[in-house]
Amino acid sequence: MFKKLLIANRGEIAVRIVRACAEMGIRSVAIYTEPDRFSLHVKGADEAYFVGEEPLAGYLDPRRVVNLARETGCDAIHPGYGFLSESAEFARICSEAGIAFVGPSAEVIAKMGDKTAARAAMREAGVPITPGSEGNLASREEALTVAEEVGYPVMLKATSGGGGRGIRRCDTPDQLAQAWDRVISEATKAFGSAEVFMEKCVVDPLHIEVQVLADGHGGVIHLFERDCSIQRRNQKLIEIAPSPQLTPEQRSYVGKMAVRAASAVNYENAGTVEFLVKDNEVYFMEMNTRVQVEHTITEAITGVDIVREQLRIAAGERLAYRQEDIRHQGYAIQFRINAEDPKNDFLPSFGRITRYYAPGGPGVRTDTAIYTGYTIPPYFDSMCLKLIVWGMTWEETLNRGIRALNDMRLQGVKTTAPYYQEILRHPTFRAGQFDTGFVPAHPELLNYSVKRNPEEIALAISAAIAAHAGL
Amino acid sequence: MFKKLLIANRGEIAVRIVRACAEMGIRSVAIYTEPDRFSLHVKGADEAYFVGEEPLAGYLDPRRVVNLARETGCDAIHPGYGFLSESAEFARICSEAGIAFVGPSAEVIAKMGDKTAARAAMREAGVPITPGSEGNLASREEALTVAEEVGYPVMLKATSGGGGRGIRRCDTPDQLAQAWDRVISEATKAFGSAEVFMEKCVVDPLHIEVQVLADGHGGVIHLFERDCSIQRRNQKLIEIAPSPQLTPEQRSYVGKMAVRAASAVNYENAGTVEFLVKDNEVYFMEMNTRVQVEHTITEAITGVDIVREQLRIAAGERLAYRQEDIRHQGYAIQFRINAEDPKNDFLPSFGRITRYYAPGGPGVRTDTAIYTGYTIPPYFDSMCLKLIVWGMTWEETLNRGIRALNDMRLQGVKTTAPYYQEILRHPTFRAGQFDTGFVPAHPELLNYSVKRNPEEIALAISAAIAAHAGL
Repeated sequence: MFKKLLIANRGEIAVRIVRACAEMGIRSVAIYTEPDRFSLHVKGADEAYFVGEEPLAGYLDPRRVVNLARETGCDAIHPGYGFLSESAEFARICSEAGIAFVGPSAEVIAKMGDKTAARAAMREAGVPITPGSEGNLASREEALTVAEEVGYPVMLKATSGGGGRGIRRCDTPDQLAQAWDRVISEATKAFGSAEVFMEKCVVDPLHIEVQVLADGHGGVIHLFERDCSIQRRNQKLIEIAPSPQLTPEQRSYVGKMAVRAASAVNYENAGTVEFLVKDNEVYFMEMNTRVQVEHTITEAITGVDIVREQLRIAAGERLAYRQEDIRHQGYAIQFRINAEDPKNDFLPSFGRITRYYAPGGPGVRTDTAIYTGYTIPPYFDSMCLKLIVWGMTWEETLNRGIRALNDMRLQGVKTTAPYYQEILRHPTFRAGQFDTGFVPAHPELLNYSVKRNPEEIALAISAAIAAHAGL
Repeated sequence: MFKKLLIANRGEIAVRIVRACAEMGIRSVAIYTEPDRFSLHVKGADEAYFVGEEPLAGYLDPRRVVNLARETGCDAIHPGYGFLSESAEFARICSEAGIAFVGPSAEVIAKMGDKTAARAAMREAGVPITPGSEGNLASREEALTVAEEVGYPVMLKATSGGGGRGIRRCDTPDQLAQAWDRVISEATKAFGSAEVFMEKCVVDPLHIEVQVLADGHGGVIHLFERDCSIQRRNQKLIEIAPSPQLTPEQRSYVGKMAVRAASAVNYENAGTVEFLVKDNEVYFMEMNTRVQVEHTITEAITGVDIVREQLRIAAGERLAYRQEDIRHQGYAIQFRINAEDPKNDFLPSFGRITRYYAPGGPGVRTDTAIYTGYTIPPYFDSMCLKLIVWGMTWEETLNRGIRALNDMRLQGVKTTAPYYQEILRHPTFRAGQFDTGFVPAHPELLNYSVKRNPEEIALAISAAIAAHAGL
């Protein structure tokens, strides 16, 4: 096993990796930029190194990170998610420096990052993909021809895109003709590549993703699926495992397809195979070659510690489990508590956390880097806490979610927590009937009344008195 | 299901019950005495009633509690553990007032509270008991005769005792002759009854207890066992589920015996059957007719919400599970974090909590009523937090325990947390070899060095400078 591991990330996922290291006897090394000086991942790691005043640069420079790992005697780097986690170049530099990259090889990252190459690999392996262009599109005319074949609506997509960016839906030939130049221009700017391809647009599907684990000894297993259909503008808000919407046959089928997908590309380490499911049809969407924000709910229903398995696989060990060892029990839901104001178009609400109290009791887990007195910096994403609940039944899990969101105290910033309570109370959601169209279809979920805590009320009254007295 | 439930308790177990009510749509009613005015169970419940200046009296007066429940429209009372939880009188008064008591009937509480009656019932049912007197002892002479038969050492015990009190070990006839008057006097003072009985003393056994659930429709199941052998002066410190020391055959046997014990007395609701295990012999010790402090670890390995089941059973519902539905996965350990100074003979360390930060991440649960700024009052027991960790394997669970104890911040009072870390690091404990003699046999576990946090160091330095400067 590794002796010392550098965490090329920040926030809650860095804390998660610090914890895995602590439990496995691996010394952990954190890096941080100026706004993260008082971050929990810095306090929690065994060593921490300052990598610059600029908020982001220090987390994004592959050579600098690898050099620091070498200088501090690390034998492994965990990239977390985001930042350098899906950079084939970073994986390659690690490998050249003789440092284990906790993730798949640079070749596999590159292949799965190239959406048309990934589609081709899946087609060859017999994994169903959405109808669309065979590879990249050469011209507007080819795009129009392919669209006629597969039928509108279609999605024009940047080949190197991801995370919901570089995508445009076209409902008519006119829209497609107009979108062509714009998507190419966006793709070039955002991803440095003008390549685009086309897929049939599956309208309001379920977003179903399967967690896989693969070692370097031919072992490939899946840990069942997650239902991430509750999204807003392609950003996941609430994730559920297993999906309350799949039949056992569908569950078994997506699991099998995910293992086939991972095996086809000689995948190694933890990965996620994303599918769109609509009218009993399943389509491969993409594969994420890193640990996922929502890996927690898979841990809750299977008991498998995914980060631990990542480290074991990267160190060359065999999977600790065979497929038949993996069982799932109950349901788990993860709430991404974002520092945003849902009532104000989800505007980020950065600032100082005046009070944080974690919910507890049965079936409740929190993963976070915040604490009372911590200031959420405006340079990174707005997710400040993951709240995970588990229950034996779907109903128990929903009610536990409402209870835990209610128990939590997170003051000083606005958050998405009250919005999630509304979702949990919605009869359609409770009936287990929701697809990626759920959030836009239910704007009434925003009509909750904000419960103010006594301290906030006292402050508001003081302010009003002061204003009235002309203080 | 109940509409409104009064919680005749305080602290973490009251918070636990508030949570169960919230998840089940039951309105919760808290009671509190003066020192608990700012307690979390008061803040968390839907309603809260003040029951007096005196710290304890309000929690211990059965008629007053039942009257309050009636006046506030409650249809059920949950007694928690301690306080009135094993009072047959309280159960009877509830029943007479038409309020559901969340626990077994007054008759069953009385029978299991009378240790010789319980022994007789178990003997009749074919549950093995320790050799000893058939019933209560009539005289010193009879005591000496029985002791000769079963062999020394023996335990002289108060028939109405419990919780480790009213017990004396006698290694010789002389000791027994001397102890006779003293135990009778203690029993009369502490339990209002002069009755005593005798059991053979099982030296340094394992303390193994089995969680049972029984409904009013003939359903009786067990949820496997807990190993509570890590005790100090008969007080449990660390509990483990399942026991890493039982063979599968022993596990199956104690489970079967516990179900037999519960069935024999027509038990209803959650209960715990305690056994002593030594040299592959199993002896019934006693049955606790209430929810146990350590029910949490059984929840962790089985997924069953025990408090929820208690409420369902008390409402007349059938058990949600058959025996074959119950599986256990992994290991769970509960740490009773007591506000005590282990290095100072475990002297209570009450006072204001200047900082509390709950540990999080995979496999970690906390149950507590404390928060930053809360003052632990000196009138109640010193347990201020239950930390529960779960892991897939024994080793993973041990390491997670060390990690979670390390992540936790609890400042302002001394606690048993650092002592527990030493236990988790001890090779004999890690090898899964420990009995009730473990704690007294390893005084070296107290030789840890206290890690002081930066704030404490800064304070100490300031104090030293001030003293030096004559301020």
